[in-house]
Amino acid sequence: MKIYRTIDEMRAGVQQARREGKRVGLVPTMGALHEGHLSLVRAARANSDYCVVSIFVNPLQFGPKEDLAKYPRPFEQDVKLLEAEKVDAVFAPSAEEMYPHPSPKEGERVGHPVTFVEVPGLSERLDGKSRPGHFRGVATVVTKLFLIVQPSVAFFGQKDAAQVVVLRRMVRDLNFDVELRVMPIVRERDGLAMSSRNAYLSPEERRQALVLHRALMRMQAMADRGEHEARKLVEIGREVMAEEPGARLDYFEIVDPETLEPVERVGRGALVAVAAWIGSTRLIDNVLLTAPAGAKGPEMH
Amino acid sequence: MKIYRTIDEMRAGVQQARREGKRVGLVPTMGALHEGHLSLVRAARANSDYCVVSIFVNPLQFGPKEDLAKYPRPFEQDVKLLEAEKVDAVFAPSAEEMYPHPSPKEGERVGHPVTFVEVPGLSERLDGKSRPGHFRGVATVVTKLFLIVQPSVAFFGQKDAAQVVVLRRMVRDLNFDVELRVMPIVRERDGLAMSSRNAYLSPEERRQALVLHRALMRMQAMADRGEHEARKLVEIGREVMAEEPGARLDYFEIVDPETLEPVERVGRGALVAVAAWIGSTRLIDNVLLTAPAGAKGPEMH
Repeated sequence: MKIYRTIDEMRAGVQQARREGKRVGLVPTMGALHEGHLSLVRAARANSDYCVVSIFVNPLQFGPKEDLAKYPRPFEQDVKLLEAEKVDAVFAPSAEEMYPHPSPKEGERVGHPVTFVEVPGLSERLDGKSRPGHFRGVATVVTKLFLIVQPSVAFFGQKDAAQVVVLRRMVRDLNFDVELRVMPIVRERDGLAMSSRNAYLSPEERRQALVLHRALMRMQAMADRGEHEARKLVEIGREVMAEEPGARLDYFEIVDPETLEPVERVGRGALVAVAAWIGSTRLIDNVLLTAPAGAKGPEMH
Repeated sequence: MKIYRTIDEMRAGVQQARREGKRVGLVPTMGALHEGHLSLVRAARANSDYCVVSIFVNPLQFGPKEDLAKYPRPFEQDVKLLEAEKVDAVFAPSAEEMYPHPSPKEGERVGHPVTFVEVPGLSERLDGKSRPGHFRGVATVVTKLFLIVQPSVAFFGQKDAAQVVVLRRMVRDLNFDVELRVMPIVRERDGLAMSSRNAYLSPEERRQALVLHRALMRMQAMADRGEHEARKLVEIGREVMAEEPGARLDYFEIVDPETLEPVERVGRGALVAVAAWIGSTRLIDNVLLTAPAGAKGPEMH
């Protein structure tokens, strides 16, 4: 397994693979790998001949008050996990390599390139509303990674549901010749969605964090029983969240999984997304609702 | 010469060429081709094995009150010119092909995709100041063309000096694997910079339009004679412009050719850029000033 630290080396490595007729697969990550990431890596291995995993904690997608500095970076451990998965190449550039920013004015900060990729509309929904600039940072770094690695196929997790929608739209609008594959959320045995940020949780917070999944499951059950009004389902979800005083709700929304616009009635594929603070850790989770038979949401017409 | 109307066909054509080991060159144009464009085409032919010229009047780079509807589209004539230059492929998509915008809400207007590429800072200078959104439209369509055609080298004219700076920055920031080549301004015998918009001019306006070049030449002469204060040079240029009552100045600026920031003293490579209205036609022109020997601009330290 090769570890590339520079863009030029990564490009050369992937060009060599492409010359050999290999299909290139990319799994963009911020490291601190867990089973969720590894499910993407395994899908990439199964669907490409040259599997690249990028590990880059992208400063551009963190807000000024967010957890950029403390974000976990267990690089050696990540490398071992990827070696065991028989990944072909790891791309692990520094922030300076990705955003060298030889700036017009001296003293400008690293981490803020001049050029941005923006997906207005979608970018301001769900996490984008709570984290202004977040999806601009995601779209920009994924554009860079796509242009450096030039994959035929790239893998993302459904855990970041809004990210997937933003990137799908970006790929379609800008004519990237990249196929996006989205893999389901991987959960701990008790239901907690896997996240690198779970490492921040104390044992007590770890227990409190289960409320996100519990709320989603309750809503799923109500929808299965025939409740199809989004407003009522959200009410139920909020009630479950309120039972856990350790959790502070950020948002609870039911949206169209393509447009991220709020829906009034749940149809096949309505996305229920939740974000909440457990102590100082912000967690997200989501579920795709299946409409109950006979539901008359606008999606069913 | 192939004429491709769809993105898929264009992609297939260029992929075939690449499989044959050919180096792909791209000349993005809005058609209404003149000798300026043809100089780019000849450079592309000389520096690539498969030469693509795109003809697309990009609605995204026109403001709501600009000349999108009346912009000349002499397609048959353009095709003949390109055939004579032995171009391999013309990419001439419709606006609907480039911006299909299967929109979340019905009735949204064509020509406005969701995803934009922005080069803040540079985008608001020179033409970007007079034409808000112009360079966002340029950066977005060039990104799309680069991703569709995937050229190794692309050719642009120095006539659009600010555009060149914006695109250079975009290519560097986003890690496009494309070499940009910039070809000098091509002028009519009397000095008028070639432009598709010259076709709008009446004979009287055609005469008035010469004032742009005249002003630039006077400034160049003053700089050669030792004047290196930008303020004084601009004063001279404005005086020349004022002598022609048919011309209405939009901007006259002396800027750093890399950052487009105003300079106080001209150094090697200071860019003098002018834009003016002749009747209802907006024209631009520019010249790169060479510093007089002994000039003490900040660029010389």
